[in-house]
Amino acid sequence: MEDIKAYVQQHKDRFINELIELLKIPSVSADTAYSQDVIDTADAVKESLSKAGCDFVEICDTPGYPIVYGEKIIDPNLPTVLVYGHYDVQPPDPMELWTSPPFEPVIKKTEIHPEGAIFARGACDDKGQMYMHVKALEYMVQSNTLPCNVKFMIEGEEEVGSKSLGWFVERNHEKLKNDVILISDTGMISNQQPSITTGLRGLSYVEVEVTGPNRDLHSGLYGGAVANPINVLAKMIASLHDENNHITIPGFYDKVEELSLEERAEMAKAPFSLEKYKKALDLNDVYGEKGYVTNERNSIRPTLDVNGIWGGYQGEGAKTVIASKAFAKISMRLVPNQDWEEITELFVKHFTSIAPAGVTVKVTPHHGGQGYVTPIDSIGYQAANMAYTETFGVPAIPVRSGGSIPIVALFEKELKSKTILMGFGLDSDAIHSPNEHFGIFNYLKGIETIPLFYKYFVELSK
Amino acid sequence: MEDIKAYVQQHKDRFINELIELLKIPSVSADTAYSQDVIDTADAVKESLSKAGCDFVEICDTPGYPIVYGEKIIDPNLPTVLVYGHYDVQPPDPMELWTSPPFEPVIKKTEIHPEGAIFARGACDDKGQMYMHVKALEYMVQSNTLPCNVKFMIEGEEEVGSKSLGWFVERNHEKLKNDVILISDTGMISNQQPSITTGLRGLSYVEVEVTGPNRDLHSGLYGGAVANPINVLAKMIASLHDENNHITIPGFYDKVEELSLEERAEMAKAPFSLEKYKKALDLNDVYGEKGYVTNERNSIRPTLDVNGIWGGYQGEGAKTVIASKAFAKISMRLVPNQDWEEITELFVKHFTSIAPAGVTVKVTPHHGGQGYVTPIDSIGYQAANMAYTETFGVPAIPVRSGGSIPIVALFEKELKSKTILMGFGLDSDAIHSPNEHFGIFNYLKGIETIPLFYKYFVELSK
Repeated sequence: MEDIKAYVQQHKDRFINELIELLKIPSVSADTAYSQDVIDTADAVKESLSKAGCDFVEICDTPGYPIVYGEKIIDPNLPTVLVYGHYDVQPPDPMELWTSPPFEPVIKKTEIHPEGAIFARGACDDKGQMYMHVKALEYMVQSNTLPCNVKFMIEGEEEVGSKSLGWFVERNHEKLKNDVILISDTGMISNQQPSITTGLRGLSYVEVEVTGPNRDLHSGLYGGAVANPINVLAKMIASLHDENNHITIPGFYDKVEELSLEERAEMAKAPFSLEKYKKALDLNDVYGEKGYVTNERNSIRPTLDVNGIWGGYQGEGAKTVIASKAFAKISMRLVPNQDWEEITELFVKHFTSIAPAGVTVKVTPHHGGQGYVTPIDSIGYQAANMAYTETFGVPAIPVRSGGSIPIVALFEKELKSKTILMGFGLDSDAIHSPNEHFGIFNYLKGIETIPLFYKYFVELSK
Repeated sequence: MEDIKAYVQQHKDRFINELIELLKIPSVSADTAYSQDVIDTADAVKESLSKAGCDFVEICDTPGYPIVYGEKIIDPNLPTVLVYGHYDVQPPDPMELWTSPPFEPVIKKTEIHPEGAIFARGACDDKGQMYMHVKALEYMVQSNTLPCNVKFMIEGEEEVGSKSLGWFVERNHEKLKNDVILISDTGMISNQQPSITTGLRGLSYVEVEVTGPNRDLHSGLYGGAVANPINVLAKMIASLHDENNHITIPGFYDKVEELSLEERAEMAKAPFSLEKYKKALDLNDVYGEKGYVTNERNSIRPTLDVNGIWGGYQGEGAKTVIASKAFAKISMRLVPNQDWEEITELFVKHFTSIAPAGVTVKVTPHHGGQGYVTPIDSIGYQAANMAYTETFGVPAIPVRSGGSIPIVALFEKELKSKTILMGFGLDSDAIHSPNEHFGIFNYLKGIETIPLFYKYFVELSK
């Protein structure tokens, strides 16, 4: 497929500029202040699918943000690829740490991206990776090489738990009927070593509120005499891990799949330098569950992290106050077989049970999703591996990711098809962080590789 | 002294309106955004002292906010009373919990204040209590009953640790020379039972910063593999108290004065209803150091409270992030004999020593002050007690307060004179909280009582 290389070279400036325009719209789904921008982004995505060659596109209303659907059916008897992606992005804060405004994309060279990378919120997660599929379709349509049917389902609530996606999928089994689901919302090992994500962690995200006295109090007059909600919250959070960093919630590990030593040995083959890892994060040491190494801690083991905490006086100077309330956002990453709703219940039950007298505790579940594992002997995995091998010159390595794409488990349950996670981002792309970026190399390489997946998937399906 | 009652009745509306004008200026010393307002308040206080009858008033510049000085010297051979107060106030947040704007004073009746109370930040702490002394002077000057010399020293940094006051006092021993220092910046038991604060707790206030990775990270890709600064901070804070709520900092209790059972029995005589206390705060139970009751926990025992905590995502919705940094403001209330600088050092040493590998910890001391105890056999205490007895019909009860007025210890060291804490506020006045207020009864009663202190102090001094 030499044509695709040539086509990308010929149109790459336009491909980059089209993505930059999309990145300028601040589609932050977590903050209602941006709701109009999220909706505008859906319209922009719909427009791009039409231009790329879809025969039919529509904005599908949901209880939340709309889902953009598009399709090009060339022959009902041929296989159908369903492409999933999301057009919403994470909140940009902390703003002050961005070296350029999050919604004013700029191209800068980095050590890892000598050809330059696009810096903007959503550049990699997931606007950039989603748009590779739109441009790959454009090529296949223009070159008349689209070998099968294709459907697009691009949602706007991935960063807030895909609340409406389940609702939509349940109601559109026929419309979404497919033979394989293709998603680019993960990473690969490096620009020299492609990899395919075969495992994802599940997620349970909750918010907790600890209330002590009915009003803020003077810490001199009341200090030491009433439960301080912040001290209590700290104590409760600390108690969720034991001295070995095992999670102490009763029943939490009951369904955790323990990998065999063989499987763990297989994982250990993935190239990894602890020194580079620590250096990249300016850490004097790593930290985590006893008995497991870093690459196991962030992939095959469940974890519990506080994602945010607040209470009392946070302003300049000093205020001697005992706050009435303290809050925290807590998320648990789950491994296959752990049911997120069951884990959420265990958390709520345990967390409220450890509240001392003198405070009341409220736990509000935000959202969650199941973990997932993709079999590497499936046609889809094979096709993806062949595509990577052709464009990168080396086969892809199967890896377990610590991240969560809850909807992958939903798709298998509702649509009875497997998902292939063809990621082109890098861990160093700072997704969910200030200065998120996506390599020009990665963006164009993705556009080159995707048509090959279609080709091999159809060949292997015969 | 029937005249004072009559004078107060005749002028009370003006007294109230003058205080309301003063309360309208948002003199928040902790937040530089209000710096001009703080300075304007100093001018207003200077003006009020002139009008009340001081012969000499001036705004004294300091490295921080100015100190207002005023005096009326009627005879160098007569005793001199030095009145101390502060014109700065606590930050008003959380704003949303105020039932009326903090700097738009309104008079509302409450169960405890059937005659009405002035609701505004600083109404009680300390503008209202400070201004009682200004109006008491006005009466004594107008009625020609001022029996001795009087000096005023009103500062604007009390709520941020009186940073410049020490600097000022050290440089003005002669100007500030006095026989007794009179302060109304504390409370009394109830409007039926006056009390005089004989003990104050010291204070050490620090801010801590825990840094993990050099940037915010995706909690899926890194969760469980690196130290999460918020989880670590929670663990470190939790470890500062043991299961009996004793503070675990090595050496923290070494110099704590243990009261005799007799003294504790004496303290227990002060009227106190645990049920009413819990009900007033909507608490199902109190909480604190094992082996001590509520009134001991908040007065004769040192304590450690987190006054503010923050880190990670605090916005709407969910963000799956591991924050790079987490912060907390922590204050320790100290009892007499504990040296605040020594305790601060112990805290810094201990807190940094318990930081696990994978994070770095920074501790920044904010400010502090020593505890203090006033002897009840002093002339000043006797005079105050006689004044209260005359206006309230019952003698005052000596009580230990949990609050801190660090400068009281400073005054004794620098000016070699005792401080009398004639407080007219109530615990329920919500100082440092939303809806701070000061009873009209208390305000006027204070103006009535203060001239009697001058009368008896001069008589007892002969």
